[in-house]
Amino acid sequence: MTQTAPIISVDAMGADNGPSVAVEGISHILTRLPETPARFLVHGDEAQLAPLIAAASPLARERITLQHTDSEVRMTDKPSEAVRRSRGSSMWNALAAVKNGEADVVVSAGNTGALMAISKVVLRMKKGVHRPAISASWPTPRGHTVVLDVGANVECGPKQLVEFAIMGEAFHRAVHGSTHPTVGLLNVGQEELKGNDTVRAADRLIRDAKIDFKYHGFVEGDDISLGLTDVVVTDGFTGNIALKTAEGTVKLVAHWMRESFTSSLTAKIGAFFLNMGGLDHLRAKLDPRSINGGVLLGLNGMVVKSHGGTDGEGFATALGLGIDIAGSHFLTEIEANLERLTRAEEAKSETDS
Amino acid sequence: MTQTAPIISVDAMGADNGPSVAVEGISHILTRLPETPARFLVHGDEAQLAPLIAAASPLARERITLQHTDSEVRMTDKPSEAVRRSRGSSMWNALAAVKNGEADVVVSAGNTGALMAISKVVLRMKKGVHRPAISASWPTPRGHTVVLDVGANVECGPKQLVEFAIMGEAFHRAVHGSTHPTVGLLNVGQEELKGNDTVRAADRLIRDAKIDFKYHGFVEGDDISLGLTDVVVTDGFTGNIALKTAEGTVKLVAHWMRESFTSSLTAKIGAFFLNMGGLDHLRAKLDPRSINGGVLLGLNGMVVKSHGGTDGEGFATALGLGIDIAGSHFLTEIEANLERLTRAEEAKSETDS
Repeated sequence: MTQTAPIISVDAMGADNGPSVAVEGISHILTRLPETPARFLVHGDEAQLAPLIAAASPLARERITLQHTDSEVRMTDKPSEAVRRSRGSSMWNALAAVKNGEADVVVSAGNTGALMAISKVVLRMKKGVHRPAISASWPTPRGHTVVLDVGANVECGPKQLVEFAIMGEAFHRAVHGSTHPTVGLLNVGQEELKGNDTVRAADRLIRDAKIDFKYHGFVEGDDISLGLTDVVVTDGFTGNIALKTAEGTVKLVAHWMRESFTSSLTAKIGAFFLNMGGLDHLRAKLDPRSINGGVLLGLNGMVVKSHGGTDGEGFATALGLGIDIAGSHFLTEIEANLERLTRAEEAKSETDS
Repeated sequence: MTQTAPIISVDAMGADNGPSVAVEGISHILTRLPETPARFLVHGDEAQLAPLIAAASPLARERITLQHTDSEVRMTDKPSEAVRRSRGSSMWNALAAVKNGEADVVVSAGNTGALMAISKVVLRMKKGVHRPAISASWPTPRGHTVVLDVGANVECGPKQLVEFAIMGEAFHRAVHGSTHPTVGLLNVGQEELKGNDTVRAADRLIRDAKIDFKYHGFVEGDDISLGLTDVVVTDGFTGNIALKTAEGTVKLVAHWMRESFTSSLTAKIGAFFLNMGGLDHLRAKLDPRSINGGVLLGLNGMVVKSHGGTDGEGFATALGLGIDIAGSHFLTEIEANLERLTRAEEAKSETDS
């Protein structure tokens, strides 16, 4: 079977720890996925990148095409400034490569606000969507729950939350392979009388729109990790805090585990046997680098946002996610879903008038 | 050394699983704290409670005084209805016992909204505070971080967030024994330009008020479990979702641990040795019942809110928290802090005019 090689456009200058993160990430993902035919279009400063690439594995060298850029977006740049000043930067050019059809997906660890703003300008929004949302795929005992928005939009109206529901549902179908994903709206209580005005209005809008999807209603914070619904919708302020709180909690539990495993001689013996059979798998699950990468939804193009502070292992996870979605049809699924929303709204306004 | 026995006023009808939860909770806490001289004023339906108390341990029977009530607040009651109709209920009478000086602290697992509303009417707010906040003491590697509000106020203005900071700081000093607790404001990014209008305005208000306490500025979700600051301030919507997300994450990790400990024979041998030395301690830390209980702040009286769905073990934790704070001077600390805020505001308006 032949397979078209996905081409990943990499903004190599965005990570807090410098361009080595991107090059190491490529080496790691090629080790993790030895069968992948993926190629990498690496955007950034040639003077810094060329020696890093020269020192990389033979396979990484073969798969990388370096594209020099003179400038880069800094972590402190405001989004509006970044849009005006960053033409020709590694972030801009990485996005332009997807726009021009040279690559399938962008991966960047750069400034989130700037990435959002430049993506909007370069790739443009899908019809019916106001701003991109960032989705995170949260591991649960049942698979993955897609949570959005996790940080792109700190203030969201009810209409935007409905858009997130539509996009998240399409994303779950396309990327996690479910046929009828369930959608929940994050709130402080499951009873309908609880919650703030925005989520209550969004709940009514989703019910009124009569979109043909499985809407569960309100869910609470602990339902995310339980995997109660396949998609959890929230504003970017709450979603970002929920995601980071979960990350911090995982780190805390890992700390307690280490403490408990070294608290006595018998515990150390136990940990020794566990290391032989089963603990590595757990350790990998507890490693925040193993769940790195948020996907920007609502754009005419696929963009993966990596944590800024990640290392090569974490960046590899974001690249792996990019390779995964490159083969999916999530853009067309989102479009189809948005059309269903528009039709539902048109039908409703005809009935109302 | 003689010690005044704290008297805990118990709303025995609030738990989802019925009045046995309260009676079992009292038995458990007396086993956990064999030295405590605490006594319990138990409010509820005598027909249901008398047989449960008769079947309890001799020590529990000796420490319980049953106070019959004819009615109870239901989980579905709206707060405004509850205030009008619940005079004489177990919740109302449990609060009135503190108001009348018969008890030191109330513990209830009942309807949160009703508990807030009835507390306001029965105990009244402290001068300068608009509505009560619920604080949770979050375990961290460094001790405890007090997070508030975790569910009492779903929409908060900047001024309210400043009140939470003031109350949380006083609570941490009084209950967790720190001399100069640090205070952080929960946000999506540590840079000042990030976040929504409310948190940015609250940040300015705290800085402008020049209250003599250690204000750290913005913190992110993962900083809570790290214990970066002693107090984390947020609105009740975000705080409730953060708290429940952390609870769900702990459950998920515990699930993965069980999976890993039974994944192979060597893993099972390891888990066996770990069970002998160290794992119990970890298991207790991962048990959500071991961190049950939020304290309502801003009232002229001490109120502990237990999870509605808890069992006897979890209710015992909430009772233990009640016994802890009964001996603290947090009400006077909060008053002193609120006076500092008022003075700072007066001084500022004099300078401004």
